[in-house]
Amino acid sequence: MTRISRMTVEDIRFPTSQHLDGSDAMNLDPDYSSAYVVLHTDNSQGLAGHGSAFTIGRGNNVVCEAIRAHEHLVVGRTLEEFICSPGEFWRSLNGDSQLRWIGPDKGAVHMALAAVVNALWDLYAKAAGLPLWQLISGFTPEQFVRCIDFRYLADALTAEEALDLLARCESGKSDRIERLQREGYPAYTTSAGWLGYPDDKIRRLCRQAVAEGWTHIKIKVGRDLQDDLRRLQIIREEIGWDRKLMVDANQVWDVPQAIRWMQELAPFKPWWIEEPTSPDDVLGHAAIARALDPLGIGVATGEHGMNRVLFKQLLQARAISFCQIDSCRVGGVNENLAIMLMAAKFGVPVCPHAGGVGLCEFVQHLSMVDYVAISGTWDNRVCEFVDHLHEHFVDPCRIRQGRYLAPQLPGHSTEMRLESRRQFAFQRG
Amino acid sequence: MTRISRMTVEDIRFPTSQHLDGSDAMNLDPDYSSAYVVLHTDNSQGLAGHGSAFTIGRGNNVVCEAIRAHEHLVVGRTLEEFICSPGEFWRSLNGDSQLRWIGPDKGAVHMALAAVVNALWDLYAKAAGLPLWQLISGFTPEQFVRCIDFRYLADALTAEEALDLLARCESGKSDRIERLQREGYPAYTTSAGWLGYPDDKIRRLCRQAVAEGWTHIKIKVGRDLQDDLRRLQIIREEIGWDRKLMVDANQVWDVPQAIRWMQELAPFKPWWIEEPTSPDDVLGHAAIARALDPLGIGVATGEHGMNRVLFKQLLQARAISFCQIDSCRVGGVNENLAIMLMAAKFGVPVCPHAGGVGLCEFVQHLSMVDYVAISGTWDNRVCEFVDHLHEHFVDPCRIRQGRYLAPQLPGHSTEMRLESRRQFAFQRG
Repeated sequence: MTRISRMTVEDIRFPTSQHLDGSDAMNLDPDYSSAYVVLHTDNSQGLAGHGSAFTIGRGNNVVCEAIRAHEHLVVGRTLEEFICSPGEFWRSLNGDSQLRWIGPDKGAVHMALAAVVNALWDLYAKAAGLPLWQLISGFTPEQFVRCIDFRYLADALTAEEALDLLARCESGKSDRIERLQREGYPAYTTSAGWLGYPDDKIRRLCRQAVAEGWTHIKIKVGRDLQDDLRRLQIIREEIGWDRKLMVDANQVWDVPQAIRWMQELAPFKPWWIEEPTSPDDVLGHAAIARALDPLGIGVATGEHGMNRVLFKQLLQARAISFCQIDSCRVGGVNENLAIMLMAAKFGVPVCPHAGGVGLCEFVQHLSMVDYVAISGTWDNRVCEFVDHLHEHFVDPCRIRQGRYLAPQLPGHSTEMRLESRRQFAFQRG
Repeated sequence: MTRISRMTVEDIRFPTSQHLDGSDAMNLDPDYSSAYVVLHTDNSQGLAGHGSAFTIGRGNNVVCEAIRAHEHLVVGRTLEEFICSPGEFWRSLNGDSQLRWIGPDKGAVHMALAAVVNALWDLYAKAAGLPLWQLISGFTPEQFVRCIDFRYLADALTAEEALDLLARCESGKSDRIERLQREGYPAYTTSAGWLGYPDDKIRRLCRQAVAEGWTHIKIKVGRDLQDDLRRLQIIREEIGWDRKLMVDANQVWDVPQAIRWMQELAPFKPWWIEEPTSPDDVLGHAAIARALDPLGIGVATGEHGMNRVLFKQLLQARAISFCQIDSCRVGGVNENLAIMLMAAKFGVPVCPHAGGVGLCEFVQHLSMVDYVAISGTWDNRVCEFVDHLHEHFVDPCRIRQGRYLAPQLPGHSTEMRLESRRQFAFQRG
């Protein structure tokens, strides 16, 4: 038996706003931060699970406080209890009748849940001696379904449907694992197109991206139409028309404005428009999707998608052509497995959001599970990559020729180096 | 000039779980709590604005932490700046580019915003020497519209449409104010039907409610179908069939289950089913509304409705027959004014959620604004009343014959008595 003996929480902030890394039309000066949790155990080898939620500075302390509020729900319980029924365990963490009030299933308390849940999966995978993607990909359909809380999903996906879907994906699993280990998982880069960068830097970064083998490139738009048109022109000159180009508005538009603006950008053939409006607006995204479909532009959203109920509706309403899960926004691995199952049922490719602090490290595991065990394909799927802050992680993600190499170390790749945690520990005031 | 000089935050909790007051199918043992904020000013008379967010215990500290995170956005600014353009001021509080990440517009950080915003309105109304409902009801349409941030609303309501709607409601205002002051605003009671109460207590409370003149009564359902049927039988025996009876499931059902369960309860002729499923599920509520419409049962939700974008969609999708705003869940007075304007445009009556700590005191003002200045009617409208914890407020709500009497003291009725705040200050551990 391995018992969770205590929880420690750390407020870690990187002063990224000094360089405008990560700047976009909505997020002007982010300080990439981590509300970090360690679940310590009574295991004699010092086995511990690490997890975190990503924020962009102020408010990181609020998420830390929300993580601490989960302490009574997890400390004292055993890893074996989690392994036996991860879905029930998840529901017990998410279902505290008092904490639920300040969600439910959303905002700071749900991001805190993500940190705790991902730490549990890190613990599980380390104990199993496997990288997380390989652990979950090896589950039987029955084991997999026991990870899911199906509450509120009955009108879109039942446990029986999930079992069928997973069973159909059993064949070819070992071939896909081998191919994944050989080729890596398709990725795209956002490193070139932050709004704060000058044109010559964009041009240089585009050339560099092409040289590195990237086939999918994303830039930020939405602050100024003329500026967007000029930058798209520069980028198409550099990357040509065979590579896929995606644009991201970070929620700055109203629905009619999103449609008009994208009609202007259509000549540059964007593959998708990401976050055209409020992340909560299912019907708005559906209206935008209907308007842009004839122009060949898909709608993508999800990095601010608060929970599985929102994703359920985005899929039901045919509001998205690309489903952008995030490791730390919804309630961690379990809820993302539910979302990926729904996306597979509705035939919508999962293209995760990443970047920030550790999101690339965490979410690559989920894309790999999607490929091996859920959808069984990586066609039309790319996992975001941003080249920031990887050096702070014990098992940083590895990119080769525009693809994520499969992690090999046991765990969820969530552990940050102790020196980094000490150096960037936030001192209030 | 009145400058906001400092902010103090208090974690206040009442041990209500000892008596099962407020128990329902989702919230088993709430400790009604208040994340309380005071905006102090440099005014020589000690003018201060009070506001709070309501929670049910654990997690109240998280909202307190989130309120503190707004300090840099409000301290040092002036009341005059707020009065000049309340909508722009609201947007500046809601738009902190870093804090926004842990919402946006939802959860702990948005509830914190509600507390701060309501404190600003309390300050404004006290300085004006008017109860809040009367202050806002006296605004010209232009002043009123300057309170609203229309971001994300363009596909449902523009500023021009809001102006038209408000202008149409100008005539008859003074008659309605007079009538409101004479008769009070229609209310309903939830005091009889908490799940934790034994049958004889329900029967006794029903008789009491009838004797007190209540015409609308609500009970909790959803834990056990046979139990619900028995309790509904008792209640109809006591209140008869002329009084309106509403039922509230507090989000416990999936969509198909909600439809089946309500088909069983239909013989008791509920006027509405409240919170049948996840509060985030616009499409789910729309499906339930379509299924129950032929049975004469309306769908009501909103107490956990996170923001104006959710309400916009509930209205667009015809998912609700009753719009249940909450004073402290969305971002305070300004955002609720936006929601009430949209409800008026879509012809859906606003029937606020109340109860908890202070929600009755706060939200009565909004119902009165709706009557005087927005919809111009109280037909099919009732504001919830629960008889708990009013004694802790400086200006407690007053009920007469099932109606809220119009508040007379200046302010937003948000100020809690100092003795109560001291007595119930939460001591951690």
